[in-house]
Amino acid sequence: MAGNTIGKLFKLTTFGESHGKAIGGIIDGCPAGLALDFEAIQNELNRRKPGQSKIVTQRKEPDTVEYYSGIFEGVTTGTPIGFVIHNTNQKSKDYSHIKDVYRPSHADYTYDKKYGVRDYRGGGRSSARETASRVVAGAIAKQFLSKIEINAFTSSVGDIFIDKPYQDLDFSKIESNIIRCPDEASAQKMISKVEEIKKQGDTIGGTITCVIKNVPVGLGEPVFDKLHAELGKAMLSINAVKGFEYGSGFCGAQMKGSEHNDLFNEDGSTKTNLSGGIQGGISNGMDIYFRVAFKPVATVIQKQDALNSAGEIVEMQGKGRHDPCVVPRAVPIVEAMAALVLADYLLLDRVTRL
Amino acid sequence: MAGNTIGKLFKLTTFGESHGKAIGGIIDGCPAGLALDFEAIQNELNRRKPGQSKIVTQRKEPDTVEYYSGIFEGVTTGTPIGFVIHNTNQKSKDYSHIKDVYRPSHADYTYDKKYGVRDYRGGGRSSARETASRVVAGAIAKQFLSKIEINAFTSSVGDIFIDKPYQDLDFSKIESNIIRCPDEASAQKMISKVEEIKKQGDTIGGTITCVIKNVPVGLGEPVFDKLHAELGKAMLSINAVKGFEYGSGFCGAQMKGSEHNDLFNEDGSTKTNLSGGIQGGISNGMDIYFRVAFKPVATVIQKQDALNSAGEIVEMQGKGRHDPCVVPRAVPIVEAMAALVLADYLLLDRVTRL
Amino acid sequence: MAGNTIGKLFKLTTFGESHGKAIGGIIDGCPAGLALDFEAIQNELNRRKPGQSKIVTQRKEPDTVEYYSGIFEGVTTGTPIGFVIHNTNQKSKDYSHIKDVYRPSHADYTYDKKYGVRDYRGGGRSSARETASRVVAGAIAKQFLSKIEINAFTSSVGDIFIDKPYQDLDFSKIESNIIRCPDEASAQKMISKVEEIKKQGDTIGGTITCVIKNVPVGLGEPVFDKLHAELGKAMLSINAVKGFEYGSGFCGAQMKGSEHNDLFNEDGSTKTNLSGGIQGGISNGMDIYFRVAFKPVATVIQKQDALNSAGEIVEMQGKGRHDPCVVPRAVPIVEAMAALVLADYLLLDRVTRL
Amino acid sequence: MAGNTIGKLFKLTTFGESHGKAIGGIIDGCPAGLALDFEAIQNELNRRKPGQSKIVTQRKEPDTVEYYSGIFEGVTTGTPIGFVIHNTNQKSKDYSHIKDVYRPSHADYTYDKKYGVRDYRGGGRSSARETASRVVAGAIAKQFLSKIEINAFTSSVGDIFIDKPYQDLDFSKIESNIIRCPDEASAQKMISKVEEIKKQGDTIGGTITCVIKNVPVGLGEPVFDKLHAELGKAMLSINAVKGFEYGSGFCGAQMKGSEHNDLFNEDGSTKTNLSGGIQGGISNGMDIYFRVAFKPVATVIQKQDALNSAGEIVEMQGKGRHDPCVVPRAVPIVEAMAALVLADYLLLDRVTRL
Repeated sequence: MAGNTIGKLFKLTTFGESHGKAIGGIIDGCPAGLALDFEAIQNELNRRKPGQSKIVTQRKEPDTVEYYSGIFEGVTTGTPIGFVIHNTNQKSKDYSHIKDVYRPSHADYTYDKKYGVRDYRGGGRSSARETASRVVAGAIAKQFLSKIEINAFTSSVGDIFIDKPYQDLDFSKIESNIIRCPDEASAQKMISKVEEIKKQGDTIGGTITCVIKNVPVGLGEPVFDKLHAELGKAMLSINAVKGFEYGSGFCGAQMKGSEHNDLFNEDGSTKTNLSGGIQGGISNGMDIYFRVAFKPVATVIQKQDALNSAGEIVEMQGKGRHDPCVVPRAVPIVEAMAALVLADYLLLDRVTRL
Repeated sequence: MAGNTIGKLFKLTTFGESHGKAIGGIIDGCPAGLALDFEAIQNELNRRKPGQSKIVTQRKEPDTVEYYSGIFEGVTTGTPIGFVIHNTNQKSKDYSHIKDVYRPSHADYTYDKKYGVRDYRGGGRSSARETASRVVAGAIAKQFLSKIEINAFTSSVGDIFIDKPYQDLDFSKIESNIIRCPDEASAQKMISKVEEIKKQGDTIGGTITCVIKNVPVGLGEPVFDKLHAELGKAMLSINAVKGFEYGSGFCGAQMKGSEHNDLFNEDGSTKTNLSGGIQGGISNGMDIYFRVAFKPVATVIQKQDALNSAGEIVEMQGKGRHDPCVVPRAVPIVEAMAALVLADYLLLDRVTRL
Repeated sequence: MAGNTIGKLFKLTTFGESHGKAIGGIIDGCPAGLALDFEAIQNELNRRKPGQSKIVTQRKEPDTVEYYSGIFEGVTTGTPIGFVIHNTNQKSKDYSHIKDVYRPSHADYTYDKKYGVRDYRGGGRSSARETASRVVAGAIAKQFLSKIEINAFTSSVGDIFIDKPYQDLDFSKIESNIIRCPDEASAQKMISKVEEIKKQGDTIGGTITCVIKNVPVGLGEPVFDKLHAELGKAMLSINAVKGFEYGSGFCGAQMKGSEHNDLFNEDGSTKTNLSGGIQGGISNGMDIYFRVAFKPVATVIQKQDALNSAGEIVEMQGKGRHDPCVVPRAVPIVEAMAALVLADYLLLDRVTRL
Repeated sequence: MAGNTIGKLFKLTTFGESHGKAIGGIIDGCPAGLALDFEAIQNELNRRKPGQSKIVTQRKEPDTVEYYSGIFEGVTTGTPIGFVIHNTNQKSKDYSHIKDVYRPSHADYTYDKKYGVRDYRGGGRSSARETASRVVAGAIAKQFLSKIEINAFTSSVGDIFIDKPYQDLDFSKIESNIIRCPDEASAQKMISKVEEIKKQGDTIGGTITCVIKNVPVGLGEPVFDKLHAELGKAMLSINAVKGFEYGSGFCGAQMKGSEHNDLFNEDGSTKTNLSGGIQGGISNGMDIYFRVAFKPVATVIQKQDALNSAGEIVEMQGKGRHDPCVVPRAVPIVEAMAALVLADYLLLDRVTRL
């Protein structure tokens, strides 16, 4: 109940602090018989890892995953998959300057007040480093999903938005630039924006859009565990996320029913898809798409007032090697979380009927 | 796992179809010793019930709740609270015309494909009638929350928005008009808008803003069960919801870190509150506020194409007595869901420390 | 978490006190498409109900179940099945004499100390009346199990035991006598024993053996949720149960490995079945059998010392209409709990493989 | 749901196969602020480990636990505790001879049929090696329990039983002999028995009794999650366990109510304790005691018929270094499981009242 588990049948529990010995997790419920592509998993980790381009943090961490159990001769056995990523970069770091300091818009203050004790080094458990474990599990979930395709991409950085519907984008180009935006013109503007922000020692927010194709009809559970509700929770659980909308989203709230309704084709597909592929919390076979809002990273390389545990306002300055914009590295995390939710709901759907 | 339960310690499980004998639920985990104000619970149900004003559906349902267990001499005993609301209006209805028809943007099609069988009358389980059970449980949760204040209100209808920050609003005026908007000038515009839409036989979407005051520091569980993630899921589980944002939300995604960070006061409060009262998934004692987007009701009183189970496109027309705008009746539902989440997290927080 | 739910996928949550308005429950997760035999369900309830023979309590309660949801035209829809049994006999009872008294070996004291408040009438939530809800759900689970056969029977009363292995018994005779023992000679001795005990105003314990046939290979989850562990928990959750053993049980603890091992036949069946149909927590296709110990009913019609809430020892006397031996009425409860566990594990097994 | 987690608030999830890289687990929900005694934890592991005496398996495994997270400067932080025990002894082993063979009364057959794939080396996931992770978590739980004392001991081996009530035993002597029986005379007979059995290349079953003192009144949740039901499940989840009884147990089933009832003292304690410290599933402050039956180890050093995956009966012989009697090494496992259940219920009890 302490909140470090996601999923009901395809379950991930993670552990680990930013600067402890290791992070990792246990996947319990991955079906037996899945021949794993380990390179594909590592590749997802590499998409998330620091130091991969000039617009992300320059920390170097190899982020190599080790599997301890649940896999025999390359195939899942149905028993829990324990995995670990050792923290290798943490020793050199000195975090004693924030030992008693609560940085603004970080979780330092709330963790301290809640638990009365905290591992302050690098944010401890609240660090986004934890998401590496999600990416491992999500990459395994993706392999289980087989034909279901999940593509996330950067759809805005600050006030720069892709000005096309997702249907006009070529998802094969997401990885062709360092901001992970499939629209090359927008991508270049976004990259320039991040570089400019970085020079200012500042940070910038953005949004990620995720599109899921080839979803079978029928995924989702009624009432509280609607498919989009669980997707929303999964996205909102990612560090720095402030909002989630699917289908027509907030725009839909300005529309009329006569405009918003998706009329059927004879095969059960719909002519429009403002519903975002989900009706009554259950997938209808159309594309599922949603958008996730990320706030700007709280660590800025500018002087800022902070609070210390003695109740005094103190001046502090973020040190180097932080992300000026979290969005490009969050793209694989959004995909991982979507994969975990879908894997879980695919399994849940197996027990629906006699 | 079939998705009809919410909460980990303060748990609600609901049952019931729109036109079955009854709807209801079981609250398991309400602490013992709570002297219940039954009138307050019924009052919340009345805020949700149909027929309460000219701008909502004109169906008449008394929506009287009966308590079967868990309460002795007016006080909760710690055992499960079983409660029931009998369906009294359903007998007169004739739904045979939609028996084999999937209405556009309803859950008819997805339920049928998922389960192979469905109670088609009035939407069956997918009907928003189910939310009456949530309101009962939420009203009990509110009484448990005691000093924590939850106020939701209509913040937009179509393109009419309140143009003030919530701090400038007087929440005591939410119930002073039928659209449940505390800003009287905006309220009147919204009401006119709904009336106009109703005359067209159409429907319109809107948003609800919810503000939660007096939240203690420390509610929320790390990583997957962040407080805002669970609030988001709870809101997204309400019928017709398309989006959720908290604090700076989607606007925050356009901001710079230097603008977005909430600087501390010496007492641990913050000078601004773009964080929305939550840091790292844990409440920081500032107001929690969020916004929920509702799509327009799918049932329009205009001719529309629908699909039947034989795979033919057929013309259908919504019959009277549907809501032109779901938002005013959804205000107490948003509050109920927020109350359920907070009650659960208050209990969860009791096991945090030694 | 308050403990009123059993099952992970085929879930039952119950509510209700002995002398409240009603008891009942919600079954969430019963697969869609099951055509229910309502008479069979009521028949199971009748096997459990008071007043059915001269050796059980003479209370009269009709115990008629009403279904509120989840069933449409006689078939389960996959949505939660809400059901209720109204308490009809409770009004005439006067329990004010035990209002402040803790009866020995009842739950009065522990409920009062735990919750600080309790519904003292007839044991409130701790009454075995609650098991009627289990019987309803178990009867539905049995119908889902189809070919799996569950037979429980009285295997001992006091020191009178059936002296045959279960393989020599004809389960079709279980209902042929009022003690529910398929061995007629033993049955008559048991009935005489209960009658004798009843005359003394005393009560007597006993055991129930349960045999489950036609279980597919593969039910059970590794490590903590072994099939027999969950069966054990389910049985131990029944009022008055003090012990559970399966297969060779406590006798097995006196045996040597060379005697105890079940050697295989070529088809995977085993020559002996000391394992009780389960290996490593997973069914192996052989009969599952287990034995459940019930203590004597605590309410005796003799004077006894009790404690009152003021800390004084007071004399009290149980009033009439209690069971001299709980075992015959517990037979359908044991079957119901077994059916619930197996239904759950049948569903869980569907997600084991790719 | 795949069954590798126990507990609701104090949760343990384990992973690992006998001959994989490592075993380990995640404890999620251990309260913050617990200063850990790491030596005490290792000591519990040492009580369980192979090679500790002449009557247990002679395998050598260091069983050293490494902590990866959740502990900062020796104190729990409230975040998940990830821990790992590397498998160091497995490389030398050759298990290819059982690759396609199902050993009698092992889980080889059921795992293979359930999952279609298995790690056959040393029993894989079904190996009792997994219980080392439970001992780690249980040792941490014990430290959380502080004043609650848990003592388990060997109460029988084969047909040799301690012939005294537990009240006459000195628990400080449990560790004074290698069979872990506090009654020295019985201990010597048990040890001789095991040595004799070992010489025969055979194995023998036994029972463990566990006594829990200083339990506060009020632990346990009503109906399905009764304290003894969860204790029973926890014990039945241990490898080789065939039965569980608490308080009067199976003997109670032969008693009369007038004999069995525990009369109160004025302070709420009882004159006798046939109830075993639990009434209605809730602790009453008296000693909790229960007995657990272990079957003889299935691996005997004698020739036995086995089945291979081609459906042929083949002769096989267990190789050396197996336990002739599992009971002495299971004593710390029983204590660990009891500690985990009590820790969970202590936390659950915190949310009982307003």
